[in-house]
Amino acid sequence: MKIDDLRKIGKIEYRGSKNKEKFSFKHYNPEEVIFGKKMKDHLKFAMSYWHTLCAEGTDMFGNATADKSFQKSDPLETYKAKADFGFELMDILGIDYYCFHDVDIAPPGKDLEETFALFDQMIDYLEGLQAKHGKKLLWATANNFADKKFMNGAATSPNADVYAIAAAKVKKTIDATIRLRGTGFVFWGGREGYETLLNTDMKKELDNFAYFLKLSRDYGRKQGFKGDFLIEPKPMEPTKHQYDFDTATAIGFLRKHNLHEDFKINVEANHATLAGHTFQHELRTAAIEGMFGSIDANEGDPQLGWDTDHFPKNVYCATLAMYEILKAGGFKNGGINFDAKTRRPSNTVEDLVLAYIMGMDTYALGLRKAIALIEDGRLDEFVQKRYDSYNRGIGKNIANQEVTLEELYEYALKAGEPEVESGRQEYLESIINQILFS
Amino acid sequence: MKIDDLRKIGKIEYRGSKNKEKFSFKHYNPEEVIFGKKMKDHLKFAMSYWHTLCAEGTDMFGNATADKSFQKSDPLETYKAKADFGFELMDILGIDYYCFHDVDIAPPGKDLEETFALFDQMIDYLEGLQAKHGKKLLWATANNFADKKFMNGAATSPNADVYAIAAAKVKKTIDATIRLRGTGFVFWGGREGYETLLNTDMKKELDNFAYFLKLSRDYGRKQGFKGDFLIEPKPMEPTKHQYDFDTATAIGFLRKHNLHEDFKINVEANHATLAGHTFQHELRTAAIEGMFGSIDANEGDPQLGWDTDHFPKNVYCATLAMYEILKAGGFKNGGINFDAKTRRPSNTVEDLVLAYIMGMDTYALGLRKAIALIEDGRLDEFVQKRYDSYNRGIGKNIANQEVTLEELYEYALKAGEPEVESGRQEYLESIINQILFS
Amino acid sequence: MKIDDLRKIGKIEYRGSKNKEKFSFKHYNPEEVIFGKKMKDHLKFAMSYWHTLCAEGTDMFGNATADKSFQKSDPLETYKAKADFGFELMDILGIDYYCFHDVDIAPPGKDLEETFALFDQMIDYLEGLQAKHGKKLLWATANNFADKKFMNGAATSPNADVYAIAAAKVKKTIDATIRLRGTGFVFWGGREGYETLLNTDMKKELDNFAYFLKLSRDYGRKQGFKGDFLIEPKPMEPTKHQYDFDTATAIGFLRKHNLHEDFKINVEANHATLAGHTFQHELRTAAIEGMFGSIDANEGDPQLGWDTDHFPKNVYCATLAMYEILKAGGFKNGGINFDAKTRRPSNTVEDLVLAYIMGMDTYALGLRKAIALIEDGRLDEFVQKRYDSYNRGIGKNIANQEVTLEELYEYALKAGEPEVESGRQEYLESIINQILFS
Amino acid sequence: MKIDDLRKIGKIEYRGSKNKEKFSFKHYNPEEVIFGKKMKDHLKFAMSYWHTLCAEGTDMFGNATADKSFQKSDPLETYKAKADFGFELMDILGIDYYCFHDVDIAPPGKDLEETFALFDQMIDYLEGLQAKHGKKLLWATANNFADKKFMNGAATSPNADVYAIAAAKVKKTIDATIRLRGTGFVFWGGREGYETLLNTDMKKELDNFAYFLKLSRDYGRKQGFKGDFLIEPKPMEPTKHQYDFDTATAIGFLRKHNLHEDFKINVEANHATLAGHTFQHELRTAAIEGMFGSIDANEGDPQLGWDTDHFPKNVYCATLAMYEILKAGGFKNGGINFDAKTRRPSNTVEDLVLAYIMGMDTYALGLRKAIALIEDGRLDEFVQKRYDSYNRGIGKNIANQEVTLEELYEYALKAGEPEVESGRQEYLESIINQILFS
Repeated sequence: MKIDDLRKIGKIEYRGSKNKEKFSFKHYNPEEVIFGKKMKDHLKFAMSYWHTLCAEGTDMFGNATADKSFQKSDPLETYKAKADFGFELMDILGIDYYCFHDVDIAPPGKDLEETFALFDQMIDYLEGLQAKHGKKLLWATANNFADKKFMNGAATSPNADVYAIAAAKVKKTIDATIRLRGTGFVFWGGREGYETLLNTDMKKELDNFAYFLKLSRDYGRKQGFKGDFLIEPKPMEPTKHQYDFDTATAIGFLRKHNLHEDFKINVEANHATLAGHTFQHELRTAAIEGMFGSIDANEGDPQLGWDTDHFPKNVYCATLAMYEILKAGGFKNGGINFDAKTRRPSNTVEDLVLAYIMGMDTYALGLRKAIALIEDGRLDEFVQKRYDSYNRGIGKNIANQEVTLEELYEYALKAGEPEVESGRQEYLESIINQILFS
Repeated sequence: MKIDDLRKIGKIEYRGSKNKEKFSFKHYNPEEVIFGKKMKDHLKFAMSYWHTLCAEGTDMFGNATADKSFQKSDPLETYKAKADFGFELMDILGIDYYCFHDVDIAPPGKDLEETFALFDQMIDYLEGLQAKHGKKLLWATANNFADKKFMNGAATSPNADVYAIAAAKVKKTIDATIRLRGTGFVFWGGREGYETLLNTDMKKELDNFAYFLKLSRDYGRKQGFKGDFLIEPKPMEPTKHQYDFDTATAIGFLRKHNLHEDFKINVEANHATLAGHTFQHELRTAAIEGMFGSIDANEGDPQLGWDTDHFPKNVYCATLAMYEILKAGGFKNGGINFDAKTRRPSNTVEDLVLAYIMGMDTYALGLRKAIALIEDGRLDEFVQKRYDSYNRGIGKNIANQEVTLEELYEYALKAGEPEVESGRQEYLESIINQILFS
Repeated sequence: MKIDDLRKIGKIEYRGSKNKEKFSFKHYNPEEVIFGKKMKDHLKFAMSYWHTLCAEGTDMFGNATADKSFQKSDPLETYKAKADFGFELMDILGIDYYCFHDVDIAPPGKDLEETFALFDQMIDYLEGLQAKHGKKLLWATANNFADKKFMNGAATSPNADVYAIAAAKVKKTIDATIRLRGTGFVFWGGREGYETLLNTDMKKELDNFAYFLKLSRDYGRKQGFKGDFLIEPKPMEPTKHQYDFDTATAIGFLRKHNLHEDFKINVEANHATLAGHTFQHELRTAAIEGMFGSIDANEGDPQLGWDTDHFPKNVYCATLAMYEILKAGGFKNGGINFDAKTRRPSNTVEDLVLAYIMGMDTYALGLRKAIALIEDGRLDEFVQKRYDSYNRGIGKNIANQEVTLEELYEYALKAGEPEVESGRQEYLESIINQILFS
Repeated sequence: MKIDDLRKIGKIEYRGSKNKEKFSFKHYNPEEVIFGKKMKDHLKFAMSYWHTLCAEGTDMFGNATADKSFQKSDPLETYKAKADFGFELMDILGIDYYCFHDVDIAPPGKDLEETFALFDQMIDYLEGLQAKHGKKLLWATANNFADKKFMNGAATSPNADVYAIAAAKVKKTIDATIRLRGTGFVFWGGREGYETLLNTDMKKELDNFAYFLKLSRDYGRKQGFKGDFLIEPKPMEPTKHQYDFDTATAIGFLRKHNLHEDFKINVEANHATLAGHTFQHELRTAAIEGMFGSIDANEGDPQLGWDTDHFPKNVYCATLAMYEILKAGGFKNGGINFDAKTRRPSNTVEDLVLAYIMGMDTYALGLRKAIALIEDGRLDEFVQKRYDSYNRGIGKNIANQEVTLEELYEYALKAGEPEVESGRQEYLESIINQILFS
């Protein structure tokens, strides 16, 4: 890929839904004020460093289809060129935020010390680019899953030295996050799980893992980090089972270990479906617990059993996601990270830009439609009425938790057969369609 | 089905693994002492009332293939005949326990009062049969999912009257459990979930649900029930999403609502796989939390996406389940309930007996093999050594939770590249095969 | 359910996409001419007799939630009332076609002879209703799966008498189809498969099955039936494996047995996804073979592993389906049958009507959008250009099948590294979104 | 990895099922005559070149964990060292066959010509090793999926030059197969499918694909190749949909294009389950059509939705596979290829050897148990009796295809309600368990 190809495309402008210019936004109009805020402040789009600037289209059966060395051979120069490309891409797309793993931004050194030194150089470089381009770090994370040493886990490794190295990388990345004024720090436990229970002391691993999170939290807070610590659940892949299986599991674990005040959930759409849930379900689950933090807005393929990380295109899904997010009060420290990659044969700069446009338009339209749903009011009104029996009589006593089982028993004996009302699912679904298609 | 067909078969005896008499146990030898206990006390087999005595082979596309009226037409007589058949079946199989839903054991009345009166008559009858046949109640449960009124939920119904009726049924069934000296009371939330989030106030439903469990617990304890309250997780089916999705989710919910001291988990094998887990995983998860209670030992079909409730036949699965159960200290108030049905075309008394024999032999063999695994010791020894680095140096500090992130950072910088050891999965798997097939 | 509730709702009119009257069509305007035909002739909507008039909301864990006896107790009167309700429902919705199984329309008799006599009476009755209401039969089918006798299969039963009975029911239903001037006769093999290979002679079953289809075809053609014989594939459920697994499997089987000239495929959307395909894929597969016949337009739930038969609501899916159908030349003898049921808690006449409205609007909108896609032309143009290399040079020789492997080898050695072009998936997906949302 | 580590382990000997020496066979005794043949001739084990000698433990989220450069830096020397290691591994394990892709055995050159020249050098080298070690080539295949140029397909590429290059590679690999006296030539269409139907002319791709197979067949036969051409079906992964979805689909395609006389199926166990089938089902399907050829004996994980390629360990699965294979007449040109890799953390030479031992023992035990099943006879006898009604009366007429629909109708009217017999699934399953565990 070449930065010149990016420059040829130029700044992407909003031109409305009917314009056929492919390099234009149909729905995303960043400065437009809607529902009390600018669109860009509702959506807080972020570029994912890894998919966008590092991944070259390999898959389990295929080699690279794109070259992301950006015409450099020196390692550090290559990483600077990646950064340059990334910040220009953000400029062109009007994206204000980005997210990275420690290993995305700098080349590895011959040992940890050199690796950290190179990392520091690149943090300087990124700080400069942030200032120059007016961009912000949404969140950072330590990649404690790709290297050979993490093959049995990082915070759940049976090897204490690996645990220590993982901890060191987290410390280094927290330091960088603070310096770059990031508002989130994510833990994705791609190897925090097991390949087989036969060789696994799951209890010890979970205890070590909780302690790892506690140490990280304590350190970050001590250093003045005010943002969110985030768990990104995923049920499986790469390992057979990952401990942060889904939102409910992660929250249960955090609560058990008394970490739920500092941690929130970064919900990823494709991880939700791999766990047997809708994206909306995971968002609702996090919101109910007051632990909704941020999202990774990619999409999976319902017929495929792995993380495909498609750029989001399904407006149903985006609408219901934005509906949950608006109901949860919108993004605070979080935002919309595109943990998405172009398909392997979509291997050009043009494809990358077109994919981001599609993703951003999908969520922009989702936002517009979610607002329309709320303003329409039929959905909310239906739900409110549906539970009305809990506002009076025995229902009120239940809701107020002022009843006994014996009282309910006596009540039931006299109640007669209740009139249970239709759930009206098809009607509610047709409202969604009307909001989307009118 | 006719009780005479049962009597023709007669008592099933243990005849060893090579005997070709189909009506014999190949592995289950109830009085044999093994690993410090009689096999029957290790396994605590239970007959499921519903599949065995009520279900007639209907499925979503087909009518009944078996007649379980037992040649009676009067409703109460039919239910007595069901019970008679069931207790003779238990005699023939040497099964000591049974499990039921309230609706399994007695016909419905014209209203709740009459229903409860009929239920009481049948409780008398069951009490008599227990004494006569020397059988025990493993656990009971209230069927708060089949009736039309529960179509939107029971403890999570939007209708407070439905909530009250569900509570009354639980009270009645707890009373019966106490009277029949049952050691468990199960909640399976087949309708405690949603068909669509569009019509659902999930937070309110979850709060109501937790309160329902609390009311039930408080009542049961007040009445002197000393057994376990049990949640049986299932991710979906019949509804699109059930709140007790899996063991981790249920435990997180119980802990949040401070119910985890009184509740344990009843793990069902097929529900585990529907949730994306192995049975072993779910058992381990419950055991780690000290919340392992009981099991439903059926099996699913890995190619099918619904609850098939096969009688268990997979000795790998039974061995690993019994391995986890032995490690967790064995059954206390719980046991092995066969929540299993013969295939729809296996519609004779013979099939029923043969299916139970297969299921019991599968778990008896699983027990024998699990003991062999423990006595062999290679597995345990491998795991113990694998985590040895946490017994000394920095690892010990981690395990003792006496370290800071900064200390780990300093340590890591000096540690060099760690030697990470192979997980030896294939070797451990071959040990399982050796234990099973030698 | 009561017919009066239907009459209260009255005729559903087209009022455009913004109208909030729930009992109105937003997109379906039957007499509107579009793309050369009236919408109703493009879409050929059909009512499914079984879900609409027979199914009462039972599921594997629950009893009926709706009463479809229509206030009758006499069996024949009940079935006449079902028919009356059905034809009035079609009137109200403006649906011109219906589909049925033999067992849907008439009560069973005490033996086959009486059953057929009752069936004949109801055929008379339906013929009268067709004339009175101006309705047509899209297709009929014999239910050779629900009864106990079919538990091991019908055309694949190990019992020859069962085979004969199944054949008799097909003959009777073909006769009725001819008399009612139906244009299709469907075979759905819900029990034509196996529960376990252990007891199955698959070769014999497949040979018997093929012969059954041949006998039926021969008989039908002899009687003057000019319509389509149709296979409706489904991979599993109710049985573990069904022989008509998917479109490709069914076509392979038909071709092997030389039946592919008379048979076409009735593609069901939810069956497609259960088989691991998109609905679009199955339609394309049938069309390529010239064997596209008709569709069952329901929808599944991507997180659930069974046939949920939702009324269709997903406009993406409906658009791509109608796109394939238009490309395949539109419906000839086939049409759009709603093999869909309201959710179990949607148990009122209102829900039924609302569900049909949603389904019809979804496909009406799908039709409008598919036409817009075709008229837009960008998709077709892209595909055409993509394969352009087969119109010249070596590509043309390949396309014309006038080359040898040696010639290709020689060519390749000189060809150099080819410039392989991006598949532009994200761009094409964004075109779909633009067509849908502008 | 180092060849010295292999030599330290030394020749693996058969020591019986109770021996705890991990580097020994428990069940595989190559020279033992059983069921009329030596075990090694029943099983015809093959080493997979790619997993064993090339794959280094990368996955979608992780880098290499094993080094397979075998201490060489020169490309050709590295590939010779791979071969040396492979042939010594075969010696140690007593494996007689191997399988490879063209790209596995030789380094790539700067262009096709140089690539082919290097390939030829390595074919010489392999020919020498075959003679020296007494090994044979089971089958070879052209890797037309990994390289960037195949990102849109090879035989189904929209680019005719890519098609030609793929053809050239097949020609080259067929030549090598003949020279090395291989008995099979496999086509696995990892990119012969689509990522999205939106950009795909499926009809053209399928026609081109069929022509590609025809050209390859014609060339091979002309050159005197007497072995099998084989299709290896897989439903998805790496692409969204692959045309050789499963055995039935591949056979239907081959028959349509009149290729079914020369082609057979190479059934892969994990591909079967990804397609929603059991391995046994796929084998039976191929055998019924007379198109069973060879197998890839790996295993998947029932909870994971991708190709995990575990070494086989499940003796149930291996027994039923060998049962089908024996019934189909055993292997002729085919054999058992281990398309399996050690888990990523099993990254040592020891692990590789232990994994092969487990795989070979699993199939050796499967063979022993399959023979025991056949000799036991209960299964076969049950099935034979089950279809007995087709040996007389109306059943015989059906089986002989000498009946009309009208005759069946008349027969059915008089037949009365048939006595349909139980399928006895649980009993048959318990026979399997008895054979396995006694």
